[in-house]
Amino acid sequence: MKKLINSADTVLEESLDGLAAAHADILLLGADRKFVRRRNLKPGKVALISGGGSGHEPLHAGFVGHGMLDAACPGQVFTSPTPDQMIEAAEAVDTGAGVLFIVKNYEGDVMNFTMAAEMAGREVASVVTNDDVAVEKSTYTTGRRGVAGTLIVEKMVGAAAEKGMPLAALKTLGDDVNRRTRSMGVALLPCTVPAVGRPNFTLADNEMEMGVGIHGEPGRRRVPLASADAIAADILGAILDDLEPSKGSEVLLLINGFGATPLIELYLMANSAKRILDGAGVTATRFLIGSYVTSLDMAGTSITVSVLDGQSKELWDAPVHTAALRWRM
Amino acid sequence: MKKLINSADTVLEESLDGLAAAHADILLLGADRKFVRRRNLKPGKVALISGGGSGHEPLHAGFVGHGMLDAACPGQVFTSPTPDQMIEAAEAVDTGAGVLFIVKNYEGDVMNFTMAAEMAGREVASVVTNDDVAVEKSTYTTGRRGVAGTLIVEKMVGAAAEKGMPLAALKTLGDDVNRRTRSMGVALLPCTVPAVGRPNFTLADNEMEMGVGIHGEPGRRRVPLASADAIAADILGAILDDLEPSKGSEVLLLINGFGATPLIELYLMANSAKRILDGAGVTATRFLIGSYVTSLDMAGTSITVSVLDGQSKELWDAPVHTAALRWRM
Repeated sequence: MKKLINSADTVLEESLDGLAAAHADILLLGADRKFVRRRNLKPGKVALISGGGSGHEPLHAGFVGHGMLDAACPGQVFTSPTPDQMIEAAEAVDTGAGVLFIVKNYEGDVMNFTMAAEMAGREVASVVTNDDVAVEKSTYTTGRRGVAGTLIVEKMVGAAAEKGMPLAALKTLGDDVNRRTRSMGVALLPCTVPAVGRPNFTLADNEMEMGVGIHGEPGRRRVPLASADAIAADILGAILDDLEPSKGSEVLLLINGFGATPLIELYLMANSAKRILDGAGVTATRFLIGSYVTSLDMAGTSITVSVLDGQSKELWDAPVHTAALRWRM
Repeated sequence: MKKLINSADTVLEESLDGLAAAHADILLLGADRKFVRRRNLKPGKVALISGGGSGHEPLHAGFVGHGMLDAACPGQVFTSPTPDQMIEAAEAVDTGAGVLFIVKNYEGDVMNFTMAAEMAGREVASVVTNDDVAVEKSTYTTGRRGVAGTLIVEKMVGAAAEKGMPLAALKTLGDDVNRRTRSMGVALLPCTVPAVGRPNFTLADNEMEMGVGIHGEPGRRRVPLASADAIAADILGAILDDLEPSKGSEVLLLINGFGATPLIELYLMANSAKRILDGAGVTATRFLIGSYVTSLDMAGTSITVSVLDGQSKELWDAPVHTAALRWRM
């Protein structure tokens, strides 16, 4: 295992300390590093809280800040956070307008966020994301997995919360954005969990895992390595079959790297994906290209398509100031 | 070779097309993709042009936009751009106030930018960056290599140009920022040039290359894999010995990933580096953590320290709106 770490036991803690030092203007750590929270809260705004296993950085802590999350609860690598983390985060950032949990659809996360919602003693609603079209049931999931589309939900709901939208409407909006959003990924190389010390699956030199999950879970099939165009066609075929956008739709295209894929390849994938969308009569008018929802050092990419309308374009374009996404402020 | 590409021959072209599609609000491509330029120029501002071999994305094209570069000339992977690229870029973006070239110290780049400056038929000055303390002479370099510190020069000089600083003063400023800035890197895994198809050097499972260059050039020594703290101490020892910042100095700390290193490890390195700087009586008050000056799919990191003063803090904090760096606008 070749990693820039000191000890497999302290990766999360040390990385969170680095995050907090680097972005002290935006965020700070809760007691015992149970959560990452905005430094400055906005009274009367619904508090948005997300979280999940670590190893997907910058998701979620990198999205804490103006226009996105109020807090993020990091579990150990690929391990759900515990309910006390969400309860303490809610206590810290709820200014009285209630709390919205944004939860990726994994059994541990859903169970722990549900317990936290019941035990928090305050008004809580939840949006569960399940944008991954690859498989209907996976290693840690009943139903579809929540993957890179989660950041789109966090951005759009975050912008609406910033503008004062109340809790029930935010819940409806989040569910709606999730329904308009689909993702699928491919792995070229596996990832290694520090505490395990060896790759969490194996791929031959000429193989890739089509439909891989963000923890290296199996996808649809193990296939021979293919060209960027063929990969984009396969993934977008699955996404568009399921999403069924009407001809002439505008979409947001997210090309996401899994952690070990360089930007030169992600922009090349963006070019392939855009051409295929154009051919399908769908126009990408918003783009996000980079490694935003990662799987430690896995090589590969996911493509996410989110159908836009006037409201969602406005919410996407709205100011955001977090460690990982910043624009218009 | 596992890469998201269609053909080794078209990687650069396709990736540039993806970049241009994704950031059409900021930049556009010159004829035959010879350069990437700002969509909107600012008349009367000195034009800043950089460039170099590709494979280091987002450097340089990702830094084209308000507050940084006016144009970037991408060569093929790890290959200098040719003088006609810089000449045509200068023709496209010089609005009459002259042109500043920002050039990393590699023989091919320096030669080609020098030829372009002589042949451009306009007022041109050049800043050559050489921030890498690892070695005094390298595979493609006489003198020190220009590496991740180049982006700090581009940011600070870019902010000053935006405020109307004239060409001669920008040249002086760029040389001064370069002199205040030192970097050194380490590779854990090699990179693979698409047209070559195999790793450009080999490392045993327990080895790393300390002082590696951004093309995988040899560094100071091949050493056993070490902890993040030990790596940070080694690199910062070399940097601080050379830079000799006075006690109480404020610095900008850049933890740069080489392309295949996940953010969780880079934030952990930031934590190690900050602690060591604190111990040396030097305070990091500005941070940049991410993969900004990469080496294709090389795993590893570089640390850059740049000594700040009132002017350079203001220039660093000034608004920037590029594909890869965005803040305050």
